[in-house]
Amino acid sequence: MARWELAFSVDPAVKQPLFVQIAHAISMDVRRGRLRPGDALPGSRTLARSLGVHRNTVLAAYQELTAEGWIETARARGSFVSRDLPDPKPRALPRISPRSDVPARPAYELRHVPEMYRASQGHPPTTLALAGGIPDVRLLPSVELARAYRRVIKAQGSALLGYGDSRGHARLRTGLAQMLSVTRGVAASRDTVLITRGSQMALYLVARALTAPGDLVAVENPGYQPAWEAFRLAGARLLPLSIDSGGANVKELAKLAARGPIRAIYLTPHHQYPTTVTLSAARRIELISFARTHRIAIIEDDYDHEFHYEGRPVLPMASVDDKGAVIYIGTLSKVLAPGLRIGYVVAPPPVIEAIASYRSYVDLQGDLAVEAAVADLLEAGDVQRHIRRARRVYQERRDILAAQLKKQLGSALSFEKPTGGMALWAHVAQEIDLAAWEEQAAHHGVAFQTARRFTFDGRMRPYVRLGFASLGETEITEAVRRMARALKEMPQKGRPRRDQS
Amino acid sequence: MARWELAFSVDPAVKQPLFVQIAHAISMDVRRGRLRPGDALPGSRTLARSLGVHRNTVLAAYQELTAEGWIETARARGSFVSRDLPDPKPRALPRISPRSDVPARPAYELRHVPEMYRASQGHPPTTLALAGGIPDVRLLPSVELARAYRRVIKAQGSALLGYGDSRGHARLRTGLAQMLSVTRGVAASRDTVLITRGSQMALYLVARALTAPGDLVAVENPGYQPAWEAFRLAGARLLPLSIDSGGANVKELAKLAARGPIRAIYLTPHHQYPTTVTLSAARRIELISFARTHRIAIIEDDYDHEFHYEGRPVLPMASVDDKGAVIYIGTLSKVLAPGLRIGYVVAPPPVIEAIASYRSYVDLQGDLAVEAAVADLLEAGDVQRHIRRARRVYQERRDILAAQLKKQLGSALSFEKPTGGMALWAHVAQEIDLAAWEEQAAHHGVAFQTARRFTFDGRMRPYVRLGFASLGETEITEAVRRMARALKEMPQKGRPRRDQS
Repeated sequence: MARWELAFSVDPAVKQPLFVQIAHAISMDVRRGRLRPGDALPGSRTLARSLGVHRNTVLAAYQELTAEGWIETARARGSFVSRDLPDPKPRALPRISPRSDVPARPAYELRHVPEMYRASQGHPPTTLALAGGIPDVRLLPSVELARAYRRVIKAQGSALLGYGDSRGHARLRTGLAQMLSVTRGVAASRDTVLITRGSQMALYLVARALTAPGDLVAVENPGYQPAWEAFRLAGARLLPLSIDSGGANVKELAKLAARGPIRAIYLTPHHQYPTTVTLSAARRIELISFARTHRIAIIEDDYDHEFHYEGRPVLPMASVDDKGAVIYIGTLSKVLAPGLRIGYVVAPPPVIEAIASYRSYVDLQGDLAVEAAVADLLEAGDVQRHIRRARRVYQERRDILAAQLKKQLGSALSFEKPTGGMALWAHVAQEIDLAAWEEQAAHHGVAFQTARRFTFDGRMRPYVRLGFASLGETEITEAVRRMARALKEMPQKGRPRRDQS
Repeated sequence: MARWELAFSVDPAVKQPLFVQIAHAISMDVRRGRLRPGDALPGSRTLARSLGVHRNTVLAAYQELTAEGWIETARARGSFVSRDLPDPKPRALPRISPRSDVPARPAYELRHVPEMYRASQGHPPTTLALAGGIPDVRLLPSVELARAYRRVIKAQGSALLGYGDSRGHARLRTGLAQMLSVTRGVAASRDTVLITRGSQMALYLVARALTAPGDLVAVENPGYQPAWEAFRLAGARLLPLSIDSGGANVKELAKLAARGPIRAIYLTPHHQYPTTVTLSAARRIELISFARTHRIAIIEDDYDHEFHYEGRPVLPMASVDDKGAVIYIGTLSKVLAPGLRIGYVVAPPPVIEAIASYRSYVDLQGDLAVEAAVADLLEAGDVQRHIRRARRVYQERRDILAAQLKKQLGSALSFEKPTGGMALWAHVAQEIDLAAWEEQAAHHGVAFQTARRFTFDGRMRPYVRLGFASLGETEITEAVRRMARALKEMPQKGRPRRDQS
């Protein structure tokens, strides 16, 4: 074999250290057959001179190649290409220069994956988003939070930074259990509470623990699509229940049960998502009775319990459940901040154990330091203080939104002021092309959610969901003004017909 | 109907507010038929007097019941049980007093769930655990971490505490991409990196994106059980590859492929888990070539890249992959702390998108504030400084463990000092009953991992894995002393036979 010479030029644009580039070039020469097992490599001085680099750089490259098994070094005889390599036939491999990007496409197939859920829609920063279910994180006592984080890390860093309990930090579980039992009548203890990463993980894990492919699960329609998808990913087939002013029509369950045994019913009884109606007492009784008879799990998602403005919050169904029929899901995403990703499940210990087991293979555990910090805030009363403050603020914002809508869009929208929650559900006058309005509104710098985001068949209905929690009062007024302006300036087709105005 | 009287006694042990207890008692009377739709309730003054509570408490209870739909209040005529209720037949329901515990058992069935994985085994605090793969979080610059957390919350709290990108915080993705390309030769950019909650979530999501029920996935045996379980939960059937001094026997793949198309190969090429051997260069070449030919995804789990003590770390297979065959998984759990739950996946953008989509239904997003804080530490060089320091410390601990084992357990254990990683893999002399030793060791206050934790069939083999990273030098010496003492004091059966000593 002719004397080998390394074809290599230093590329200053490449961020890899020089020795790595050299090692890579040599290993590529082995792979494409320019160097073969047993071939001698030039001495480090020689190669350094020919490449115009420092000898130490070559030595580092040789060390790298030795570590990787490409070359071997015999003390007196210098370095050789490993004999342990397969004898790859010399091939005309394409010349590969040091890479700065990963391949654009995989060399293998992907299985079907669902369409991404985006909680925030990524509007331009000047857009005012009447986003439902998004709290105003500007109200959060973030300084107290950061201080609490530092405090717990300082006091018990080792315990919080290591491996821990898949059910969550014990102190937060205890604190939440107390809070739930005192303020919501939900009987709970440390061992019946599991901390999840937001209510989404609670839904995902509950779906996995309850359903196998083909199982039937009843859901509300319109309803919360990310929950549906969690059940679908577990293989469940979904059965939609219609919604009216009394909440989910639980009477439909009997008929749906004819299609096979229903495993679970997922619903949002307090402020139904997205319509904000409260499930009536009569239906609650009927539902619990039906579920018990048929051994169906009721999954009660009480995502914004605290934000009830007329009278006190309605107690959850879990508060009257003494037979273990209800799996109760809550979150601090609305009360504190979504970014903290703290949700929880309350259920009998065998269910908690099952969920924790599954969870140990999903992400092992939550963020114990953040959990401990939140427990700190809970124990100090900071969370409760924040809730009281936020409730007052959100109630005012609800009232302003309702007043502004009446004033500026009274003929386009009709609605009842919601008794709770963080959004208002409004019927849109039939002559309005809602999809066109939504589009026009985007041009005017305002975003709102239309019914197709919530319908089981994904089709449009004449409803909008307008969130009022995350915007200030002047922002809300301006948002409604933009909605009205967008409606006025809508292209012919979507404009209210003359004979009706 | 005879005049209704509320059978109710205040239970001071119950933590619920009095008004909630009263409301609950009344609603129970409706449910058990003692009160029927249309029945009049006593005036608030009357009931307050008869219960011996303040009138406001009764008013609050009535307000609660009204909100829940149990009762209606007509301005002049007082309160009545709602007519909207179903007419439940009077039943002799058991008397239910206010509950303080959730039911012990669910009223519905659970689907099969896997056995819980416990990363830390929960030994008594006096036990010295030679736990493999657990870093010493006492070395962590936790004060800097807490400071960084406060800094990012203060500077950009609103953005970090709201909803965000399912791929993780952009700054950390950029920082990791740079780190990977500079130190490991892995070409990566912000859009080809996804931050996960530890490598476990990376494994879980990759398994979901790649495999459908029945798909074949090759794994190492012995190997990493939590990864296997992630694939099993996605429905995969696993094919074990044996391990020898050159790492996984990739030659076996050809034979295994006869059972059907293999979708993916999961392996730990750098320091094979649990044996710590490095996959030879020859096998790397062979593996990549086989994977490309058969469109198989190579899932490279490089969980402790930095901790290599002889020479420099071997560059990952991802560093030579230019065809998108390798999915690269890493973690900061070993480098910083498991409790931070920061792992990552590097793959072509379509794969990252698919994983992010799936993830949006699992937990929506990671902990953006912690991610930003870690990005801060990465940019400031704190992470790199910590790595250098930890590497030096762990290397010393490895040397001490090896020396102590030779000295105190030289006849029981044989091993090669690992070139990297955080644990040592040792063969146990055949005459020793390993299960008995493990048990005896627990009594002596020392814990180590035996082979059955890692074998594909779950059966014992004569090997132990001894972690050296999480214990100090004197702790390691003491741990080995306890191992030796446990071995000496073992009951008859497990003791080395006399004729061999």
